Amino acid sequence: MAIPVESFFLPQGAAGTLQQRIRQMVSEGILSGRFRAGDRMPSSRGLALHLGVSRITVTLAYTELVSSDYLTARGRSGYYVSEGVPVQPAFQPVARREERVDWAAVTGGRFSRQPRLERPEDWRSYPYPFIYGQADASLFDHQNWRLCAVQALGRRDFETLTADYYEQDDPMLIEYILRNILPRRGISARPSEVLVTMGAQNALWLAAQVLLRPGQAVALENPCYPAFRGMVAQTGARIMAVDVDADGLPPEALPAGVDVVFLTASHHCPTNATMPLARRNALLKAASERGFIVVEDDYEFEMSFLRPVSPSLKSLDSEGRVVHAGSFSKSIFPGLRLGWLVGSEGFIREARALRGQVLRHPPGHMQRTAAYFLSLGHYDALVNRMKMAFRKRRMAMDEAIGANGLTVAGQGGFGGSSFWMEAPEGVDTEALALRLRGEGVLIEPGRVFFAPEAERRNFYRLAYSSIAPARIGEGIARIARAIG
Amino acid sequence: MAIPVESFFLPQGAAGTLQQRIRQMVSEGILSGRFRAGDRMPSSRGLALHLGVSRITVTLAYTELVSSDYLTARGRSGYYVSEGVPVQPAFQPVARREERVDWAAVTGGRFSRQPRLERPEDWRSYPYPFIYGQADASLFDHQNWRLCAVQALGRRDFETLTADYYEQDDPMLIEYILRNILPRRGISARPSEVLVTMGAQNALWLAAQVLLRPGQAVALENPCYPAFRGMVAQTGARIMAVDVDADGLPPEALPAGVDVVFLTASHHCPTNATMPLARRNALLKAASERGFIVVEDDYEFEMSFLRPVSPSLKSLDSEGRVVHAGSFSKSIFPGLRLGWLVGSEGFIREARALRGQVLRHPPGHMQRTAAYFLSLGHYDALVNRMKMAFRKRRMAMDEAIGANGLTVAGQGGFGGSSFWMEAPEGVDTEALALRLRGEGVLIEPGRVFFAPEAERRNFYRLAYSSIAPARIGEGIARIARAIG
Repeated sequence: MAIPVESFFLPQGAAGTLQQRIRQMVSEGILSGRFRAGDRMPSSRGLALHLGVSRITVTLAYTELVSSDYLTARGRSGYYVSEGVPVQPAFQPVARREERVDWAAVTGGRFSRQPRLERPEDWRSYPYPFIYGQADASLFDHQNWRLCAVQALGRRDFETLTADYYEQDDPMLIEYILRNILPRRGISARPSEVLVTMGAQNALWLAAQVLLRPGQAVALENPCYPAFRGMVAQTGARIMAVDVDADGLPPEALPAGVDVVFLTASHHCPTNATMPLARRNALLKAASERGFIVVEDDYEFEMSFLRPVSPSLKSLDSEGRVVHAGSFSKSIFPGLRLGWLVGSEGFIREARALRGQVLRHPPGHMQRTAAYFLSLGHYDALVNRMKMAFRKRRMAMDEAIGANGLTVAGQGGFGGSSFWMEAPEGVDTEALALRLRGEGVLIEPGRVFFAPEAERRNFYRLAYSSIAPARIGEGIARIARAIG
Repeated sequence: MAIPVESFFLPQGAAGTLQQRIRQMVSEGILSGRFRAGDRMPSSRGLALHLGVSRITVTLAYTELVSSDYLTARGRSGYYVSEGVPVQPAFQPVARREERVDWAAVTGGRFSRQPRLERPEDWRSYPYPFIYGQADASLFDHQNWRLCAVQALGRRDFETLTADYYEQDDPMLIEYILRNILPRRGISARPSEVLVTMGAQNALWLAAQVLLRPGQAVALENPCYPAFRGMVAQTGARIMAVDVDADGLPPEALPAGVDVVFLTASHHCPTNATMPLARRNALLKAASERGFIVVEDDYEFEMSFLRPVSPSLKSLDSEGRVVHAGSFSKSIFPGLRLGWLVGSEGFIREARALRGQVLRHPPGHMQRTAAYFLSLGHYDALVNRMKMAFRKRRMAMDEAIGANGLTVAGQGGFGGSSFWMEAPEGVDTEALALRLRGEGVLIEPGRVFFAPEAERRNFYRLAYSSIAPARIGEGIARIARAIG
């Protein structure tokens, strides 16, 4: 039968060119079973008139549909739906299910009950977003990222794009990490000592799973990154919270019998403290004498724009006791999901096998795109641009915080992208954050950073990585007014 | 100081255009500390002469290096290394570490000791690769994939590319799955009942973690996909292996007290059996009466080119007892790492929280690219092309297997991409596979598919998804000769 031209409507609000939308309209009609094998399509002239588009657009769309075998051209008599088109099976979806499983009991809510940082989905629409760790579109080098991605989509990289790496990583990315990224942290490593991960989150999760078993003792900084505490708790290990001071975690405060210590030595989260060299050496000496393992989350080390970055713990490790995690997601963009783990071969072997079991490997295309972006120097140029911008914003923050009489609890001598703030005793910053939302200001309440048994409610974090510098003054003033 | 032109060598074997390689050479020299802030670059003419390239190429590279702030142009006096370039810290990497940790004891080798399918890394260079589940470059629609990826790299999709989705998925991909993919399996679901995963492997891993706790009883098919058994074992659940027959898993053989059943009903791995409708209904009835959960791995359902695909278990589920896992990685390419989970809201909530903890989310860019590829109809065209090619290859397999007197143990009435084969009793197919490698033939020995307590050594799998049809006859003949 001939399909009446009235059956065709361009999909509303769809992305893509007119030609793409016509193809989509036809292929969807075929796939949904509305148009059937052998049906005759309207003439290109007729369809063009009906849709109000040029005839050449329809002809080009038809030609493409022929080459992808949705349509067949039969000489002068026109276009027909192909005989070989995919046919929808004639299943009737079951009527609305009646839930008969008590999922809360089955799952125990083990994973969804973790406390975490909340932020509104539409945070970008707030004028004063003091929100941590998001990409700033005005700094990102979108054009060069796109060029690198297009290069990684070329024929030459077909296998990188498509292959099932399973246990391997992209050799080009590994080489760049080994030769350029790790040496900047003082680390020299072999390929068998490095694993590419889905960002730092995944790196730390893998480390926790490989190193911890139920009942083991693990020391965490207090306060610390809440997702961190959550993933460690999941292993069944006993968490011992160790209070940090202005120099980070004091090694002498580590409780007896600790098996593993997780910490953010270079840039403590959330207080921004940097552990001095003497303390680093004392920590490693204790690790050696007491036989524990150290896991270092070396995030954001690139953002040292005020002081040279200090050497990583891993660079001081002469016994293979330190596991080092890092990430490109902060400096490139969080949606990238690429990070790394460095550790002894025996550790990396297990982490690699676990990664294989959980997700196989980070997509080859993302790895190769990042490898090009890094090796062509765009990454360093981006980091440089971010440092300059953050330095400026930090000055504006400093000034506004001083002018408004707010109290900084930790600001990181090296730079970074946030301030750890203390409100007067008695202020509940969760309530404060809610109130401030109404005034267009987003802050991060500090409670979730603290161990549950040592909860503090009057701290909060102010990040300047996503806020326009011109907005900083007014944003801080609003916070000060709200604290009153 | 002026940098002597002799300091410059184009990186050997590097990818990219001449201009890119010149930029890389300069930026690497700067980043490694060989060239320092204020150093004067050779003239573009001098460098062009030295490298044997055109002067305009060098000039363009210099211009780009200026815009990314590696170089500064000073009027007529030439180009200088910028003052703002990133400087390498002066760490001395620690001398070779002396490993002092017994990693085998620390980790227990818990993850690396899982049996798994082995294949040589250079499998593509073998003339007769009967290897399962890899992308066939001759069928893949590389051009349209690239177009979709470029579209997903556009300004309009900036947020999809970069954003930290955390708990969310790409709404465009979710919509396509809900409206097009799931209805083909008879499933109707709401957005809160679907989760995007890093391929089917990740989907099944998440399901195992959410549903199983130490000591619970889980039934697995025997034989089954070995990685599957490995990930279930990791949860500490008790595995009960249930032998499959020509119709897949017999529900009446499920042991008492089972909490969760994992199975591949539509297309049993590796025997290719399809569970008939009556058995599916019997299984769901048993699930309802005995209160267990069913997890269905619905992989490769698109490859039903001989018989219409049967409805998924999930489509028959009226009580919310079935969790459904599927993947785009088989039909698009394995390196894509995109799949999905469908289940009741209470289940998906936990799986989503766990995914967030483990890796946050699959990269937005891969999700959006897939969404375009799907919604523009390229996916269905690709699946169609694969079906036609596989049908042809399967006929060649059938013929060659018959002509050479080999025994098929399971071939899948619906189509698929492999045969499950039985060698005479006494043949160890692992030794056979090794011998065949020497003759350019890759087969998959069957032992790892069986539960350890019910090991069989004379089975093997022959896949035809990556072998050229013209090679099938000779490949099968070589296998027959080797079995003797």
